[in-house]
Formats: sequence, structure tokens, C-alpha cells
Amino acid sequence: MPFINVEAHLPGITGLLEYRKESAQPIRDLTQILLRGPSSLTEGERELIATVVSSGNQCKFCTTAHTAAADLLLGETKTAQSVKEDIETAPVSEKMKALLTIAKLTGQSGKLVSDTAIERAKSAGATDIEIHDTVLIAGLFCLYNRYVDGLSTALPDSPAYYDVLADRLVNHGYTRLPQGYDHLKK
Amino acid sequence: MPFINVEAHLPGITGLLEYRKESAQPIRDLTQILLRGPSSLTEGERELIATVVSSGNQCKFCTTAHTAAADLLLGETKTAQSVKEDIETAPVSEKMKALLTIAKLTGQSGKLVSDTAIERAKSAGATDIEIHDTVLIAGLFCLYNRYVDGLSTALPDSPAYYDVLADRLVNHGYTRLPQGYDHLKK
Repeated sequence: MPFINVEAHLPGITGLLEYRKESAQPIRDLTQILLRGPSSLTEGERELIATVVSSGNQCKFCTTAHTAAADLLLGETKTAQSVKEDIETAPVSEKMKALLTIAKLTGQSGKLVSDTAIERAKSAGATDIEIHDTVLIAGLFCLYNRYVDGLSTALPDSPAYYDVLADRLVNHGYTRLPQGYDHLKK
Repeated sequence: MPFINVEAHLPGITGLLEYRKESAQPIRDLTQILLRGPSSLTEGERELIATVVSSGNQCKFCTTAHTAAADLLLGETKTAQSVKEDIETAPVSEKMKALLTIAKLTGQSGKLVSDTAIERAKSAGATDIEIHDTVLIAGLFCLYNRYVDGLSTALPDSPAYYDVLADRLVNHGYTRLPQGYDHLKK
């Protein structure tokens, strides 16, 4: 039972974004820029960063939603599952291992990101902007995870919900849905 | 030494917001809405929430900056210092004690916000929107704290910097400064 009066049919973050539309807009904008805007990281790689941070924060709604989005973008389910279990043995590039490690550390505390972790990423070819975006995406998902769990939002009734949500996030992004797409909310 | 190439004369968050202006805009907008927008919580009370969360995350730049902003808004320095040391004995209302406790718990993990903590706030008169904004401000400062420390940004050379910054945050808010106010950046 959510701590505040959000619409009962909107689980997780979706009810919160409708509850306070004014604050929702910049949250949507920031997510769209970081996860769907121009970047040398693929959309799938950026969803993996969101997944690893949400998993570290044990936020069930966000972890399941962004795992589903990563799976859809990557066309397979092994990689997202692997990075949640063990970044080092996951089937991703050395650069992504280094960036996912930075994201995971940032998810715990910014103070844990070490010179060594950054050097590893740079040696593997990570640019300043990739490191910047990795840390900021990790910070953004710390916001999301706390927002979703700190207000005790509900989980969806059916696991199939996450597939519908992932389709929306992959094909429509993080901006507000235009009128006529309301069926995708449910 | 920051992990990425930010302008050397811009410490803490200020260099990051200049480094990537596109992502900076929604971060500024969200902060302005939550900390300076219409609310039944005063600007000083909202700065105390930012202070408690930043202090819990041991982010020196953010804690000092928002302590200075709270001090300026409240016209004294005792309250901000007290809430960082012990919320229960701080000279704030019972409602603020309950909201600051929720903020502090959220800063650690959204999962720590208990029914009891929420009931206490509601019994003390906190509304749904006040509880919502408290949790979201706490989430936002978890983003800020990780962004600032995860990229190892520099502290200002002089403690007097924070007074200049606080004056800017109190008198100009969190939006980008218009041309002609560039001296306030330093």
C-alpha cells in the first residue's frame, strides 16, 4: 500500500509521475537525455547501467523494468541477468565492465569511486563524457529507486506488465505519452 | 583532482552543470520546483532536508552549501547544525522532525522508510504532498551527492565561497544565472 494517495492502477514510478506532473517533467527530460539522447554508449548499454544500479539498491520495480528494457534492446536476456550477478564474467566489453563497476560503486556512494576504477575505464577507452554520463545515470537511478521504494509504491499485478512497459520505454522513450497512447499506461 | 575535465575554477556541482549543459537544465528545473516552487514547507525547511541528506551521504560540498543556504534563509546557524547532529533535539516542529527523519532514512535506502515513520509525520500534520516532496528531495540530493563525489570534484579554495553560493541560491534560486551575473559563479 503506497504511503500517499497515488492512482491504484499505476504501479511503481508511473503513479508518482502522474501524482506530481510538475516535478515529473524534468525527471522525464533528464532520463530521456541520458538514456535516449545522442551518446557513444548504446541505449542497451545505458539500460544495463540503470539495471545494475537498481539491482544494487534492491529496487524490484526499477530492476525488473530496466532489465526488460535492456533485454528488448539487446534482443536477448543473458547479458542483463549476467551483469546483475557478476559484472566481471558478463558478456560485455572491457569498457562496459569498467563503466558498470563505476555505476555500481556510485550506487552505493560517490565516495567509493576510486582512481583505480576510473583508470581502468580510461585504459579501456572510456571517454570523459561516458564516465560523466555513467555516474549521472547511476545518481539518477538512486533518485528513482528511493522515490519508488521510499513511498512504498505497488508492484504490478502481473509480470507481463513489465513487457508492456519495456515496449513503451524502447519505442516511445521516457517523455510523456501523447494522448491516444493511454492504454500503454496500464 | 576531478576525474573528468571540468573547468578548474568551478568547484563541486558548479563545474558539472557547466560541463554538460543539456543534462544540467532538467536538474536545475527539478531543484527549482522542489526547493523554491510553491509549497507548504518553507524554503528554509526544504534546505534543511537537503542538508540532512547530504550530511548523511557525507558529501562535504553539498552539506556545506545547503547548510549555508539554510542558515541564510533561517537567519541563524543553530538549526541546521542541530539537525545534522540530532534531529530529535533540534529546534524544529514535530512535523519537521518526522519529515527530516523520513529524508534521512530515504537517503540511506527507500526501503528503510517505515509505516511508523510515515504515521508519525501524518499524525504531526504532514500532508501527502509534503511527504512526497520530502522523499523526492531526498532522492534528488542522493543524485547530487553521488554526482559531486563520484566524479571527485574539487572543494572551493576558501570557505567564503559557500557564503557567495548561498546568497546566489537564496536570491537567484537554482536556475541558470542570466548573462551579467557571471561574477557570482566564482
